Amino acid sequence: MSSIHDVANLAGVSTSTVSNVLNGRNNRMKLETLTRVETAIRELKYRPNTSARQLKTGHTPLIGVLVPSMANPMYGFIAREIETLAQERYGFRIMIGNTYRDKDKEARFFADLMAHGVRGVIIISSLIDEQHFESAGERGLVMVSYDRRATPGIRSVVDHVTVDSFESARLATAHLIERGHRRLAFVTPSGRTMSRNEKVNGFLAAARTAGLEHDAQIIEGLPADEYGDSMMSELGRIQAGLMVKHARRPTGVVGVNDMLAFGLMAGFRDAGLAVPGDVSVVGIDNLFLSTLMYPAMTTVRVPVPEMAQVMVERVMSRLADPDIPTEEFLFEPSLVVRDSVAPPPGG
Amino acid sequence: MSSIHDVANLAGVSTSTVSNVLNGRNNRMKLETLTRVETAIRELKYRPNTSARQLKTGHTPLIGVLVPSMANPMYGFIAREIETLAQERYGFRIMIGNTYRDKDKEARFFADLMAHGVRGVIIISSLIDEQHFESAGERGLVMVSYDRRATPGIRSVVDHVTVDSFESARLATAHLIERGHRRLAFVTPSGRTMSRNEKVNGFLAAARTAGLEHDAQIIEGLPADEYGDSMMSELGRIQAGLMVKHARRPTGVVGVNDMLAFGLMAGFRDAGLAVPGDVSVVGIDNLFLSTLMYPAMTTVRVPVPEMAQVMVERVMSRLADPDIPTEEFLFEPSLVVRDSVAPPPGG
Repeated sequence: MSSIHDVANLAGVSTSTVSNVLNGRNNRMKLETLTRVETAIRELKYRPNTSARQLKTGHTPLIGVLVPSMANPMYGFIAREIETLAQERYGFRIMIGNTYRDKDKEARFFADLMAHGVRGVIIISSLIDEQHFESAGERGLVMVSYDRRATPGIRSVVDHVTVDSFESARLATAHLIERGHRRLAFVTPSGRTMSRNEKVNGFLAAARTAGLEHDAQIIEGLPADEYGDSMMSELGRIQAGLMVKHARRPTGVVGVNDMLAFGLMAGFRDAGLAVPGDVSVVGIDNLFLSTLMYPAMTTVRVPVPEMAQVMVERVMSRLADPDIPTEEFLFEPSLVVRDSVAPPPGG
Repeated sequence: MSSIHDVANLAGVSTSTVSNVLNGRNNRMKLETLTRVETAIRELKYRPNTSARQLKTGHTPLIGVLVPSMANPMYGFIAREIETLAQERYGFRIMIGNTYRDKDKEARFFADLMAHGVRGVIIISSLIDEQHFESAGERGLVMVSYDRRATPGIRSVVDHVTVDSFESARLATAHLIERGHRRLAFVTPSGRTMSRNEKVNGFLAAARTAGLEHDAQIIEGLPADEYGDSMMSELGRIQAGLMVKHARRPTGVVGVNDMLAFGLMAGFRDAGLAVPGDVSVVGIDNLFLSTLMYPAMTTVRVPVPEMAQVMVERVMSRLADPDIPTEEFLFEPSLVVRDSVAPPPGG
């Protein structure tokens, strides 16, 4: 049986270069060198063996990433940013799972990650119950959570990287109020997550500041998991259709996220209303798709690339040094004004 | 040091149940059982050890998935379908990489997959040069390729699962011709892939059948990799802006895919043209986002869930039996008529 030394000799490189290839640390290696090492591995029928290394170090250069669904463009965007950073800067690959915001699926994925020797994980979940995170943390997973706030006063096993969701919704709502809207609505699926709760509070705070609390409605749809891919946008579309039947319908509407807001715009149009002539719509996320809507949609930017960078760096630092205390990283949102908001009709 | 028998005893289950947990085969297990096994593992500080199994079997329950970019909603959709099927039916997780259609990045990802003990991979690439696939196949990777045709007469190491791209573009173009369009264009990024070539041919075939070959233009933009996330739609937007400056501009335009066609619609509107009053647009893919555009976009359905199922099944069958010969699986597209096509002005 060939050894790593045989491979190194045949390829004319050091054993540490061969080791880098075997361990997936090839991102800064010349492709020519990589090819030479791989050819030597093939010719000598050397079996690359992460397993031996894994037995030694107890982990493998993989990060687990849990997303509700990759088919949602927002999560696809975040996952893409995470994967690119992890790969290009650290030579780590990602193992990804769609968890549909289901606690059982999340718990099963944690178990699988442990079984695969993965020790670092980024979780996009925002389920309110965090107990299964804590127990996975006790078993040695290094975890970073996206889009949830830390619980004040409680030392968590999890880093929290999040945008200020309260402020996101407050900004969106204050913009509608500034343009003259007095009848406001905030539309969200009924399954409450941490970030949805904060957005509801931000919406209500903006309304209260303007003395409009009696004309600010929270409209909750069906729970998110009753829909498929298009769940958020379908929900927005349905809710827009229901809203227009009310005599005193809202003139300014905030969607819990861009996908839902796209559906609101489509639903208002289906009902014969013009956006923004008859009704104004604001989203949250600033997906690039917002610029393709007609009218281009006003929304609130969530700084995804910056947040992805912090998430990947935290996983890597804490894998290297488990004694680093967990932290909360809070990012600021910003309003992006496009064409879906105008003064209310007759306003 | 604890053994698997100690864990089984403490949890009150068989060692094969413990083994299923350790190997990620927990998808049909009661969550209560899973939790009990995990608690026993924790209490006994038993180290889950995929490595030993991997040394024995030579592979690990992971499928590699290469996509150009998860931030593109089409690839996010496909990846979501693959992951859900692989996990729920076979207990396999996925390791995913964004390759930006770059041959070097693809080759590096193959190397990493081998290093991690992964032996099955689904490739969404459509680069014309397939040499690096062949050499990875020789090293023992079971590969399934999405969106490329097999080369006739050549026995490939790769399964090909694809939609008939020629027919997709032919259907889209024939629909425009039926509605009276005589000046046609097909818009695509300049980097040619297998499926783009076939679409160009399908477009030209439809035009030729109608005797319109002299009024059917292929418009190629900048290469895809000069753009970021929004690359396809930005390209469509730019090309629409250029097209409207021509005296005899096309009245019926097919986008190489939905994302590009969304950009075409936005670009025509930016230039003051109405879709479909002044210019008609057809996409290809049938992303759910098509229904959110204004007008809702006519497009060609690609049967992604059915294709994902065949891809996952082929990887699993060939991992189980390496002697199964590779095949080509060709799926039929279908036209989905919405509101972005009307007769040409004055036509």
